[in-house]
Amino acid sequence: MTAALTRNDFGIETAIGILKQQFGERLQTGLSVREQHGHTTTWIENQPPDAVVFARSRDEVAAIVNVCATHKVPIIAFGTGTSLEGHVNAAAGGICIDVSQMDKIVAVHTEDLDCVVQPGVTRKQLNEYLRDQGLFFPIDPGANASLGGMAATRASGTNAVRYGTMKDCILSLEAVLPSGQVIRTGQRARKSSAGYDLTRLLIGSEGTLGIITEMTIRLHGIPEAMSSATCSFPSVEAACNAVIATIQMGVPVARIELLDALQVKACNAYSKLNLPETPLLLLEFHGSDAGVAEQAKTFGEIARDVGGTGFAWTTSPEERTKLWQARHDVYWAALAYRPGAEVVATDVCVPISRLAECVTKAQAKTDELGLVAPIVGHVGDGNFHTSLLVMKDDPDEMARGRAYVSWLNQTAIAMEGTCTGEHGIGQGKRAYLEAELGASTDVMRAIKVAIDPDNIMNPGKIF
Amino acid sequence: MTAALTRNDFGIETAIGILKQQFGERLQTGLSVREQHGHTTTWIENQPPDAVVFARSRDEVAAIVNVCATHKVPIIAFGTGTSLEGHVNAAAGGICIDVSQMDKIVAVHTEDLDCVVQPGVTRKQLNEYLRDQGLFFPIDPGANASLGGMAATRASGTNAVRYGTMKDCILSLEAVLPSGQVIRTGQRARKSSAGYDLTRLLIGSEGTLGIITEMTIRLHGIPEAMSSATCSFPSVEAACNAVIATIQMGVPVARIELLDALQVKACNAYSKLNLPETPLLLLEFHGSDAGVAEQAKTFGEIARDVGGTGFAWTTSPEERTKLWQARHDVYWAALAYRPGAEVVATDVCVPISRLAECVTKAQAKTDELGLVAPIVGHVGDGNFHTSLLVMKDDPDEMARGRAYVSWLNQTAIAMEGTCTGEHGIGQGKRAYLEAELGASTDVMRAIKVAIDPDNIMNPGKIF
Repeated sequence: MTAALTRNDFGIETAIGILKQQFGERLQTGLSVREQHGHTTTWIENQPPDAVVFARSRDEVAAIVNVCATHKVPIIAFGTGTSLEGHVNAAAGGICIDVSQMDKIVAVHTEDLDCVVQPGVTRKQLNEYLRDQGLFFPIDPGANASLGGMAATRASGTNAVRYGTMKDCILSLEAVLPSGQVIRTGQRARKSSAGYDLTRLLIGSEGTLGIITEMTIRLHGIPEAMSSATCSFPSVEAACNAVIATIQMGVPVARIELLDALQVKACNAYSKLNLPETPLLLLEFHGSDAGVAEQAKTFGEIARDVGGTGFAWTTSPEERTKLWQARHDVYWAALAYRPGAEVVATDVCVPISRLAECVTKAQAKTDELGLVAPIVGHVGDGNFHTSLLVMKDDPDEMARGRAYVSWLNQTAIAMEGTCTGEHGIGQGKRAYLEAELGASTDVMRAIKVAIDPDNIMNPGKIF
Repeated sequence: MTAALTRNDFGIETAIGILKQQFGERLQTGLSVREQHGHTTTWIENQPPDAVVFARSRDEVAAIVNVCATHKVPIIAFGTGTSLEGHVNAAAGGICIDVSQMDKIVAVHTEDLDCVVQPGVTRKQLNEYLRDQGLFFPIDPGANASLGGMAATRASGTNAVRYGTMKDCILSLEAVLPSGQVIRTGQRARKSSAGYDLTRLLIGSEGTLGIITEMTIRLHGIPEAMSSATCSFPSVEAACNAVIATIQMGVPVARIELLDALQVKACNAYSKLNLPETPLLLLEFHGSDAGVAEQAKTFGEIARDVGGTGFAWTTSPEERTKLWQARHDVYWAALAYRPGAEVVATDVCVPISRLAECVTKAQAKTDELGLVAPIVGHVGDGNFHTSLLVMKDDPDEMARGRAYVSWLNQTAIAMEGTCTGEHGIGQGKRAYLEAELGASTDVMRAIKVAIDPDNIMNPGKIF
């Protein structure tokens, strides 16, 4: 399946003809719509599908899949298009199923702390809806992604250190398989030992095994109190040591984020802040009033022990927003730091005992290669992103950028880490999967063939 | 694969001959050893394997699997034999691989809060080893099970409400596949989006897809403080309402267990206690000194609001042991309550909004059927066990017992629950899997065939 993919032109034309009859104006073939449904973030080239169908129900998704299965036509599911590794590219053409109109919140079960949603619901939409009921959905990847897409890529983000990743937040899924068959992978109990864990198999399968059409999601009560803290450190190593001690002491931090000195500099310029231009940790604590105060105090002591300075914490929402401003704006701050550049994000994740070493080596490597590359990290999990600021029209710089990405992925894997903590493999990281997981990739391929023998679901991804 | 299994007598004899040469006295064919390696808990008949091999390394496991694969001989992995659903029975004969001598703790990474263990390490052995380092492994299914067996059945227990199940505690696995190939499903990073989640696919696969030979396990710091509490309630419904409110308010209870009135009565008699013979909740809180005091206070207020009485809590280890004595001894108390009886355990799990209804109906059903059946539950997860106290030599009572189990599993499934929260399907619950998961079972079968085309790994289980 890593062989070059060939287009099935006749099948694609036939499928489009059939689907046009059923979907009318909800099937689009104009170039701009198609290009919007290919990869639109930088680095990986846009590969538009041949048509985009806007589905409104599970049965419509199944109908589209049935047509595509009959004619052996590729199917690519699309939520909001915020993926970073080319997941929505139509590598061999085919039909894109846009599920953004499947955006119903089907049920909220407050007593059970769960809800049932369609895949096009975005995380912000869900949290708006839940707020009045005192509940929230914790996973925050930054972008206002669709929940279906977040499930498909096993997304996480800043809250994962406390609340886990998408694999921990989904109780069960409904999906349309490549055969057109609809399955539900579990009931609504909070745990089960009934058979193979198909829920977790579909989470992170990147649309290659089935199209998610409904999800039952675990929720949390909005904490009584939230507080935020910031602290500067003399080195990445000192900051990482504070992280390790915090986690080891069992402080249940909700967020613990690292900005390196370059990222702080970019944020100072963009957000008009006066932070010391040294590594910075930003934290958030969730709990009772007394609990968040205690957590902040404990962290403050740990930070001071390893040389942290300027420790500040607050529970005021306005103050919290101000403290977190630097983190929220890192992307725009990075872009503004080098006008004209685009961001290419890396996504390695290593055991936290290796994190300081990995970040420090990454900084040295970008210096050596003459790249401008601020770093932010979900350091409680050992996950960090280098934001490579590259000029796309400079082939030499692009080559150095690619060399860095390759070096970093291999370095992380050699440190018992992964090339992707939360973005997925897609097209961009296929070259590293086997280095990371060896013979396990053969098992993945065998599962792919068993479930999708004609390779119609998102071909050219993962493998 | 639900068809009757046939024995491959010639293949089995050949494989035993070859393995005897390699393993000598570590291959046993005596009846008593073989019977010890079949199902030894009640209800399901013992089906001994043809031979038991005591393996000492991954390479030995792979060698045994290779011989069995060549001669198409069933292989059953065995840890401590504490499974409750016939998982270790040799339904079509074959070779049992006993991994209890693979009991090395390979590495402990204190900074990363993880460790690497062989599958024969038991949970108590691991916690003994970790204690001096201030770390612990939280999953507690009651029995001192092997960690390999706990992974294979996706076990959990009393702490799952706070710390999750085996699926949440394992970072990666090494396993020998039916082909003899060895895979490692992940690296040591705390999260990853690299390809299909084979870790979770193997967890709960009950030895039907591979033999686990090593695991990387997440650990937790031993909390600064632990406290315990008990409270009596006028009804199961009142107790369940207290549970729902506690979870909704985000009180991070480490354990919250229900004993019904009959179980309390049995415990009073067995453990010489004087608890009111009404439904009882037992709780454990983990955190800082101030945190556990606050959690207990919050729970006490919730309990009083719904009619709870006799609320007591303590942080003293001796007092904690005394409060939990009733819970620790439920099995023996139940057996003593009806001398001569054996326990058959059920394992349904429902959304907690349905828990009171399910428990109450279960009590009415056992009354109606004239069965003696105390109930204990991990109620924070909606999971409870009826301990049917049956006389195995009374066919009429056994028939009523079977009728109850069937009724209960179907009732839980109809309440959007599962027939097994933590014990697995094994042989005992195969009849309910399809009712619970429908067409998902076809996908499971397709995966089984793709990975184990000759059906040599634990045949006759799950499907």
